[in-house]
Amino acid sequence: MTLPRISAQDLKGVMAYPPTPAKDNGGDLSARDTVDLDETERMIRSLLHDGADSIATNGTLGEMGTLTLDEWKAFASAVVETVRAFNPDFPLFIGATTLNTRDTIDRMRFLRDIGAVGVLLGRPMWSEMTAKTMIRFYQDVAAAVPELAICVYDNTAAFRGVIPTEVYAALADIPQVVAVKYAGGAAIGFRYHNDLQAVQGKIRLFPIECIWFFAYSLYGDQVPGCWSTTATCGPEPVFYLRDVLLANDFEEGRWIAERILWAHEPFIVSRDFPEFARYNIQLERLRYEAAGYMKPGPSRPPYYMDLLPQDHVSSTLEHVRRWQVLRQEVRDRLAARSAVVQ
Amino acid sequence: MTLPRISAQDLKGVMAYPPTPAKDNGGDLSARDTVDLDETERMIRSLLHDGADSIATNGTLGEMGTLTLDEWKAFASAVVETVRAFNPDFPLFIGATTLNTRDTIDRMRFLRDIGAVGVLLGRPMWSEMTAKTMIRFYQDVAAAVPELAICVYDNTAAFRGVIPTEVYAALADIPQVVAVKYAGGAAIGFRYHNDLQAVQGKIRLFPIECIWFFAYSLYGDQVPGCWSTTATCGPEPVFYLRDVLLANDFEEGRWIAERILWAHEPFIVSRDFPEFARYNIQLERLRYEAAGYMKPGPSRPPYYMDLLPQDHVSSTLEHVRRWQVLRQEVRDRLAARSAVVQ
Amino acid sequence: MTLPRISAQDLKGVMAYPPTPAKDNGGDLSARDTVDLDETERMIRSLLHDGADSIATNGTLGEMGTLTLDEWKAFASAVVETVRAFNPDFPLFIGATTLNTRDTIDRMRFLRDIGAVGVLLGRPMWSEMTAKTMIRFYQDVAAAVPELAICVYDNTAAFRGVIPTEVYAALADIPQVVAVKYAGGAAIGFRYHNDLQAVQGKIRLFPIECIWFFAYSLYGDQVPGCWSTTATCGPEPVFYLRDVLLANDFEEGRWIAERILWAHEPFIVSRDFPEFARYNIQLERLRYEAAGYMKPGPSRPPYYMDLLPQDHVSSTLEHVRRWQVLRQEVRDRLAARSAVVQ
Amino acid sequence: MTLPRISAQDLKGVMAYPPTPAKDNGGDLSARDTVDLDETERMIRSLLHDGADSIATNGTLGEMGTLTLDEWKAFASAVVETVRAFNPDFPLFIGATTLNTRDTIDRMRFLRDIGAVGVLLGRPMWSEMTAKTMIRFYQDVAAAVPELAICVYDNTAAFRGVIPTEVYAALADIPQVVAVKYAGGAAIGFRYHNDLQAVQGKIRLFPIECIWFFAYSLYGDQVPGCWSTTATCGPEPVFYLRDVLLANDFEEGRWIAERILWAHEPFIVSRDFPEFARYNIQLERLRYEAAGYMKPGPSRPPYYMDLLPQDHVSSTLEHVRRWQVLRQEVRDRLAARSAVVQ
Repeated sequence: MTLPRISAQDLKGVMAYPPTPAKDNGGDLSARDTVDLDETERMIRSLLHDGADSIATNGTLGEMGTLTLDEWKAFASAVVETVRAFNPDFPLFIGATTLNTRDTIDRMRFLRDIGAVGVLLGRPMWSEMTAKTMIRFYQDVAAAVPELAICVYDNTAAFRGVIPTEVYAALADIPQVVAVKYAGGAAIGFRYHNDLQAVQGKIRLFPIECIWFFAYSLYGDQVPGCWSTTATCGPEPVFYLRDVLLANDFEEGRWIAERILWAHEPFIVSRDFPEFARYNIQLERLRYEAAGYMKPGPSRPPYYMDLLPQDHVSSTLEHVRRWQVLRQEVRDRLAARSAVVQ
Repeated sequence: MTLPRISAQDLKGVMAYPPTPAKDNGGDLSARDTVDLDETERMIRSLLHDGADSIATNGTLGEMGTLTLDEWKAFASAVVETVRAFNPDFPLFIGATTLNTRDTIDRMRFLRDIGAVGVLLGRPMWSEMTAKTMIRFYQDVAAAVPELAICVYDNTAAFRGVIPTEVYAALADIPQVVAVKYAGGAAIGFRYHNDLQAVQGKIRLFPIECIWFFAYSLYGDQVPGCWSTTATCGPEPVFYLRDVLLANDFEEGRWIAERILWAHEPFIVSRDFPEFARYNIQLERLRYEAAGYMKPGPSRPPYYMDLLPQDHVSSTLEHVRRWQVLRQEVRDRLAARSAVVQ
Repeated sequence: MTLPRISAQDLKGVMAYPPTPAKDNGGDLSARDTVDLDETERMIRSLLHDGADSIATNGTLGEMGTLTLDEWKAFASAVVETVRAFNPDFPLFIGATTLNTRDTIDRMRFLRDIGAVGVLLGRPMWSEMTAKTMIRFYQDVAAAVPELAICVYDNTAAFRGVIPTEVYAALADIPQVVAVKYAGGAAIGFRYHNDLQAVQGKIRLFPIECIWFFAYSLYGDQVPGCWSTTATCGPEPVFYLRDVLLANDFEEGRWIAERILWAHEPFIVSRDFPEFARYNIQLERLRYEAAGYMKPGPSRPPYYMDLLPQDHVSSTLEHVRRWQVLRQEVRDRLAARSAVVQ
Repeated sequence: MTLPRISAQDLKGVMAYPPTPAKDNGGDLSARDTVDLDETERMIRSLLHDGADSIATNGTLGEMGTLTLDEWKAFASAVVETVRAFNPDFPLFIGATTLNTRDTIDRMRFLRDIGAVGVLLGRPMWSEMTAKTMIRFYQDVAAAVPELAICVYDNTAAFRGVIPTEVYAALADIPQVVAVKYAGGAAIGFRYHNDLQAVQGKIRLFPIECIWFFAYSLYGDQVPGCWSTTATCGPEPVFYLRDVLLANDFEEGRWIAERILWAHEPFIVSRDFPEFARYNIQLERLRYEAAGYMKPGPSRPPYYMDLLPQDHVSSTLEHVRRWQVLRQEVRDRLAARSAVVQ
């Protein structure tokens, strides 16, 4: 049986979710070549160099929905090439969500052929999917392109509700499914517990970095990593969280976990997820632009930057301000620790 | 200013919504050439010959979401060619809904270039759209391809909620927007009234055939038509409704309106729309297959026919049984009327 | 078998829904005797004298939820006495919705003992009720107090969703259930049709006056009446609608039906029902106060008048302005008709 | 300024939520004296003797909605008397949720007069409350009966949605509000973090025992307790959780926290909260009856035991079976520890 090059056991640490950088023409309706491939390469190198443990692209903020097919191919090729030069088996998941199974399979074949290791895969969202339809969908694509590892993209807004626990139980029987960008309400409780039992260790259920501490505090090695979109605002705090947690340094873990939550307090994602989801693409671009770790460029139609309400702009900028404070705190802390060691 | 060949005033009567016929391989994951073009031509001819006043394709049941780009082009070309041979200015709206503005514009340009009159257009549904985003989206596509008339595709399940009244007011200022496949809860009341006022006669708000009587009884010529998916189960009852209503024969209108509702009582669409929406494609195929007016073939992945629950199958077949009874009643009635006239 | 004094067949025309008038202390937390019994008597007499065909009290706007038990008894007694003096068998339905079956039965026994004909009855709303629980609830109360006719209070906001068609089918077997203040989305379509079939003529499904025309145009005598809260803003337009419709004067019916909808266009109830439901009590008081047909007095805690957002105040006042225009139009029309007759 | 006898600082450990025991006639429609006062006294004594740190009654499972006023008074009096004999300042919160502010105040005055320390208070739920209405409601009742401490009852099903963070910020300014039976989705994440910041330590936000570990692991002394309905199935596991957590024994805490979640896996509350909420009262009675720690008796109309679907019965019994296993495990563990100590 053909299997992917990586399995759940290969995944731990921070799975970074960078955007698809746009040239200045990103918001132009007439442009058909908007991907900034230079910035793409630079951004990916930065993440790899700074310590990302895995990378996933082309979810919602990665504009799977707004790229043309040719743009997606150009971006995917650039990312795969850059990552392969770093490490051919690096856990990289390129998004391939479309409106149907066959288009997704064609995208996956393209990815396989350019040497990709994995794919990030939400489900067709024209109609709400039943549990049985979800299971069949993932079985189909895994059987069609068994060489690719699959990271399931869970997003309750985009894909119309949670993935039921019974689906997780069924996905655990598909060897290609190695991870889930777990949403489930962005909190740790009954649902997370039940889903974790359902996958029996065969799939990594990675929570967002903001709440990873809660999951790790109880489940430890069963949840050895998290996903992070904020890492592209400057990854130091997220990597620090990873380093202290995986070292079971809970005292330091508490400090950094609380500070990361503090930095997110003003951001609408922490206060009203459905509202965040209406402006997901623009909000992420805005904070990446403000943070300066990479250059996102403008968002693509129909999600124009100028459709963002002003109060979302100001609360997002306050979030970025806090994040920059935290980055400095972490750098200072690391310097102090380093001094102590010496 | 470039304008479409048709306007709202050209639209009345029944707008039929046929499916995209599939060959036997329609449900095969590996097939990439599944459109039955012969059946497509035959089906379109039948609808034209039998009296459809306008036709729209590639909505949900028309599998806009599950066709590959090449299949869509082949289907669209066949439909446009067949319709043009009948009448070059016939109000035909080919679906071009995608996940973003630019892809939709590229599809619209293709349609324009093959001589299409109009486009059926839902909105990108990856994220829930705000009112302002909806307006901008329709403004953008109308400006980019001003030659095409636009029928707005309103589907509260697929596109995440109703189109707000303020959006209708704004759409009325776009000359390309000539009609709406109006959903809005599949009932006539406050919302329909307010939306009708908002468009000021510049856009046809066509309700489903089952409830057209309610709207026509109050608004008359302001609502001179309806959309109909059931027409593809055999159009006689829907055309009879049209003929008596537009002749202001309310007595006969009452009879046929009630019979059409009676025939839909067992169909899940009349009892639980969100549940219908989960199985839309399969349910429509099932009833078209059972009714025999055309040959739909199997539905395409991920919406496999075998995912349909058994109770939906049996209630749909009872619906078709009633529809066949009604078709005969209408034929008998027409024969009796014809005899009287003679 | 004990049966109520009235049945579905006794019900036609306009069922008016007046509020529970408050004295100046209506909004005082410390007051325990807030019902304005003089105004209650005057208001009921006006409605009876002006031509209401039936009356129902103590729904949401009638503040079933905010009256103390003693206030409710005082109000109910005053209403029953006033109505009995007019006509002992007049279809009067006093609200008795509580949080449980036993309290509701005790209220119903009180109503029976003071000579009431009927009861307006929503369901306990602490928890969302399943279909089976709804059926059992109405069976229980009907069996416990069989002398009272029951008008089922359907309100999708207050009682957490629609009443399923299967429940209507079961209610049709309870002889006490004679009518429904039908909500179901405030529109006529699939659901209304199916529910109407389910009750088989044994229960009146009265729609709101604004959309009665739609139902009457198709179903005629099966829907010989409507409910109306707006009637308490001055009932002339609603009574005129009744008079022309029941005379099958559809031409005049169209005129008045459209004008009634026009008058409701600014009112939030016609644009956003969930938002209306958050301010139901205050909005109704506001428009009654502004219309001047009766004196509602202030709303009771926790639904203070000053919690009403300003934009709801202004849109409601515009609604009342239109309603006053329409009242005059109707009076003029009646005068003109009367002149013609003479 | 009059203040309650207890403040947030007096609250830690386990807040138990026992039911209102019914005599055999609990399910009889004609009974008006259904509270089993002997079992009430016995049950309360057991909880106090076994180590409950605080007790709250008459929420949803405590049948605030289904008791008559006289039954509620009898039950409240019995509970207050039993608790006062144990400790006059014991943090006891008797439920007083009604459909309006004035009735709730009258209930609170009754509680104050019989010597109660506190009240458990959900909000009137006839209409969905806005944030401003919520704030005013709690301000009103606190001002009217300032002697009583208030535990806010948060239940997203019963009270139609979460309590917004801005409301928590306002409640922190009311000295009577000392605790919240926090629901918020039964998980620890963004919302819990933000709400905890909003109350600034002035209000205890107690999560359900199943997820307390997650909150305690990060926030420690800021979350020194939890609420527990399962404690009435036999409190040993919950008290063990408390003892090891408050001793900062995280290793043992992890064991018991996971076992408690394991025991809840089959229970519908952990898998589908809206479905649980439809049968809350019956499900809780069923598991208390099966567990045998106290005798709940039958649930009161309209929430009859026989309306419970069979699959909920069997999954609940499996949950109880696991709970009994866990109780024994905890007893064994305590015995082993005790042996070591000796």
